[in-house]
Amino acid sequence: MTRDKNPRLVALLSGPDRRGIVASLAGWIYEHGGNIIHADQHRDREEEIFFQRIEWDSSSGRLQEEAASFGTFAAGNGMRATVALPGHVPTIAILVSRFPHCLHDLVLRWKTGEFRCRIACVVSNHEDLRADCERFGIRFHHIPVDPGTKNEAESRALALFQEEGVELVVLARYMQILSAEFLERVGCPVMNIHHSFLPAFVGTRPYHQAHARGVKLIGATAHYATAILDDGPIVHQDVVRVSHRHDVSDLIRKGRDLEKIVLSQAVAWQLEHRILIYGRKTVVFD
Amino acid sequence: MTRDKNPRLVALLSGPDRRGIVASLAGWIYEHGGNIIHADQHRDREEEIFFQRIEWDSSSGRLQEEAASFGTFAAGNGMRATVALPGHVPTIAILVSRFPHCLHDLVLRWKTGEFRCRIACVVSNHEDLRADCERFGIRFHHIPVDPGTKNEAESRALALFQEEGVELVVLARYMQILSAEFLERVGCPVMNIHHSFLPAFVGTRPYHQAHARGVKLIGATAHYATAILDDGPIVHQDVVRVSHRHDVSDLIRKGRDLEKIVLSQAVAWQLEHRILIYGRKTVVFD
Amino acid sequence: MTRDKNPRLVALLSGPDRRGIVASLAGWIYEHGGNIIHADQHRDREEEIFFQRIEWDSSSGRLQEEAASFGTFAAGNGMRATVALPGHVPTIAILVSRFPHCLHDLVLRWKTGEFRCRIACVVSNHEDLRADCERFGIRFHHIPVDPGTKNEAESRALALFQEEGVELVVLARYMQILSAEFLERVGCPVMNIHHSFLPAFVGTRPYHQAHARGVKLIGATAHYATAILDDGPIVHQDVVRVSHRHDVSDLIRKGRDLEKIVLSQAVAWQLEHRILIYGRKTVVFD
Amino acid sequence: MTRDKNPRLVALLSGPDRRGIVASLAGWIYEHGGNIIHADQHRDREEEIFFQRIEWDSSSGRLQEEAASFGTFAAGNGMRATVALPGHVPTIAILVSRFPHCLHDLVLRWKTGEFRCRIACVVSNHEDLRADCERFGIRFHHIPVDPGTKNEAESRALALFQEEGVELVVLARYMQILSAEFLERVGCPVMNIHHSFLPAFVGTRPYHQAHARGVKLIGATAHYATAILDDGPIVHQDVVRVSHRHDVSDLIRKGRDLEKIVLSQAVAWQLEHRILIYGRKTVVFD
Repeated sequence: MTRDKNPRLVALLSGPDRRGIVASLAGWIYEHGGNIIHADQHRDREEEIFFQRIEWDSSSGRLQEEAASFGTFAAGNGMRATVALPGHVPTIAILVSRFPHCLHDLVLRWKTGEFRCRIACVVSNHEDLRADCERFGIRFHHIPVDPGTKNEAESRALALFQEEGVELVVLARYMQILSAEFLERVGCPVMNIHHSFLPAFVGTRPYHQAHARGVKLIGATAHYATAILDDGPIVHQDVVRVSHRHDVSDLIRKGRDLEKIVLSQAVAWQLEHRILIYGRKTVVFD
Repeated sequence: MTRDKNPRLVALLSGPDRRGIVASLAGWIYEHGGNIIHADQHRDREEEIFFQRIEWDSSSGRLQEEAASFGTFAAGNGMRATVALPGHVPTIAILVSRFPHCLHDLVLRWKTGEFRCRIACVVSNHEDLRADCERFGIRFHHIPVDPGTKNEAESRALALFQEEGVELVVLARYMQILSAEFLERVGCPVMNIHHSFLPAFVGTRPYHQAHARGVKLIGATAHYATAILDDGPIVHQDVVRVSHRHDVSDLIRKGRDLEKIVLSQAVAWQLEHRILIYGRKTVVFD
Repeated sequence: MTRDKNPRLVALLSGPDRRGIVASLAGWIYEHGGNIIHADQHRDREEEIFFQRIEWDSSSGRLQEEAASFGTFAAGNGMRATVALPGHVPTIAILVSRFPHCLHDLVLRWKTGEFRCRIACVVSNHEDLRADCERFGIRFHHIPVDPGTKNEAESRALALFQEEGVELVVLARYMQILSAEFLERVGCPVMNIHHSFLPAFVGTRPYHQAHARGVKLIGATAHYATAILDDGPIVHQDVVRVSHRHDVSDLIRKGRDLEKIVLSQAVAWQLEHRILIYGRKTVVFD
Repeated sequence: MTRDKNPRLVALLSGPDRRGIVASLAGWIYEHGGNIIHADQHRDREEEIFFQRIEWDSSSGRLQEEAASFGTFAAGNGMRATVALPGHVPTIAILVSRFPHCLHDLVLRWKTGEFRCRIACVVSNHEDLRADCERFGIRFHHIPVDPGTKNEAESRALALFQEEGVELVVLARYMQILSAEFLERVGCPVMNIHHSFLPAFVGTRPYHQAHARGVKLIGATAHYATAILDDGPIVHQDVVRVSHRHDVSDLIRKGRDLEKIVLSQAVAWQLEHRILIYGRKTVVFD
């Protein structure tokens, strides 16, 4: 086996299930000189949809052509495929308000090489985190948002993202609701962290809601933002135990550790091409 | 220190907070020859309520009198107190429908001595679990429920419970909604297991709801039954990780282990006098 | 797609990794009219070993022949394959001493259909659990063990297992150490539950060891028994939080819930052909 | 109740158990005008030791005197007591080698006000993390360590710590073994993070050991450093699930999140006067 010498392609596929699809895709790769390193698949039996993630070491020497050709082959089998090229470093942008913990966690993972991406910029509706960003050499844009200027603010952010070729927008405790229009126009996934175990405690102040309800676990949920608030496909969730001893400020403090780890895990999966969205759900090949 | 020789009293107290209350209660016990073995307390700072659980070894030789006297002293300090006597074995009844796992778990813990209680009877709206109960020597009553006979069925159950002096009713996956009138008349706590992480997925078929929403964790919640469905004070919750690979039947299977362990833990705390209810919340001195 | 109509074959394979192996196996199944429903694979990069579990719906109408033929094909590719036939119900035996919780948990899962197997018998070195077994209609053999009769006791158990065609022996808190000779002669996997987070606290009285060390989590480990005590390949582990408040008896009580759930999960995976052993490790396709 | 207006004293006590001790201590506080806000206690039944943590709001207006007087009273009852004054901000020092994640986590919690302490300095045997420290305005000392200079290096660190009045030394992945002499002379607690679930995988390269053993969970342990390697009293532990899919580099990456959260939690408890050490164990009043 040739180890780690050949460039690696990663394909994400989905489409109507049919007999022989696994053999067909594996056969194509074999015939083109590829060596499958990982392959993970899933069938939704109710919807009769087939999902697959395949990593293979290519020996063709013409990666872009091979990727395109594989996409065409998949399409011919009724599948939608996206193929990630090894040289490609995705560009992300981060939207944040005042709480720094998720931003810090993302930035430090990026700094230590855990995230393979380029952080184009951080956009915030407050000035508070400018120094934190600039300290790490990340461009910071303050775009204030108020009811009268919301449209304009969103347009400014969109212009920045498009100029930079942003491929993923991360909402790292961004306390503004993005308009349906923004989400439609942004043209890339928008990953949000909600500070509750969705679908419990949708909307504002979920820790206050959790405290009022007297729950014994609090949670955090990473999900794709959609036009309906806190309703998008869920990527990752985790919880931590609380008791009557914890007041709202304790929930907020304990929740911070959840939020940052859940969001960073979801971003990692996105950067590694591990997530497929279908309807209101996700398939995560972890 | 005299170890495990003297009888043990356990008091649960709650009332308006005031300076010196800890010293006052501890002082009373000391003066009456008691030795505090455990004491746990909590202050709700918003509501200014004080909660305490105290276990002490008594040397008075007159337990009932001492317990009553302590209750009077607490009342004089504005506190509501209940004192459990060491010789008292609480009587419980179990309501169940067709799923046996929670019933089995409760019964086996009782058989092996983990639960200190008397199981007066099991009441079910189906015949299915009669043999399971009789195998363990537990009386089984089949009380069918349909829309037209619900009142009558509840009255029959109530009569049984009152005759047996039931002090705790456990709903071990009982798939009927108890009426507000039943809950008012039963005169003892009613502990339910709901097969979701409340307040998410209230009502019927929570695993189906969870699957449709695409959550990445499923949960179970033990709570006191109140007149509003799935809204009573939460005692215990736990979750387990699921993924796109799990269909509804997997969630149901995985959920069973959660349900039985969460319910049995809540029942254990109840039997050990560890739970205080206030408003829609609980204080659990675990 | 034909859903759940055709019989399902499950193959577990392992062998030296080589290019095209995925395509090759998938191609064989496709050519023989099969439809791959699940396929999961793993590569150990250090050892250069390839592992796969494939489930496919067969349309050949000759299952045994197809399974044998697939095994031959795999062998021709340097792989060791075992193929489970859909009609086959595996036979298990349980060894237990005095603690009933793991036995109960296994038996109840079997009774409610969660485990697809036949329980040939329960063998114990004590009489205590006879009634528990007979209540469920399971044959119980009392084979006492003492230093002088150990060899003979093991021989009697072996004879029983061979007579019954036992395919899995489960040690459900069996407090005797099986000899290397027994393990060699038994001719099927032996699954044990150890009541600690291995490799911490090997040997006897692990909860006492854990309490003496002051750990903040206790664990349970399901592993295959080998000639070296508590050293065999680990299948499953879990932990639960403890504190200074818990004495040894609390650890034992809390540990029981861990032990039964960890062991039952490991047995479930075994019965569903999800585990491959290599060296001192396992691949669990869950 | 006077809320959050009066200064708060926190006492940690331990000593031989005796009847009336709870009443006696609570009585003293009441008589001196204090209001007990939290009180948590523990009895080790085997050793007959009593432990308590009491927080009370003082109205004496002479805090230092009250604290000293309480200590004297406790001593008269055979108890060792330490009382923390509200105005006191503890001084800590951090020892680190090359891995930045624990250092970052500690520093960011300190920056956002989650830790109430002064970070006197960071000492490292490598230069790598100087910029990271100076970016946050923290003094950084590079003290190289090699076999020939170890004594001298330790002496330099000790001199720094004593000069700064360091009250807690945190080993944030410091890859040198401190000598027994250093630990004796440092005169304050030394908190270490070990990257395994102790007592499994003592010593170097625990993730490699864990991978070789094929465990299904990996852990991290915060403990006090003592003269015996990885043997000191355990403060906190946590684990995360791994599988055959994870190689050593995955364990290292997943372990980082464990390490930083476990260490930071242990440091938080230390700073809040929540930990009592006795023998090889801890009582953590969380």
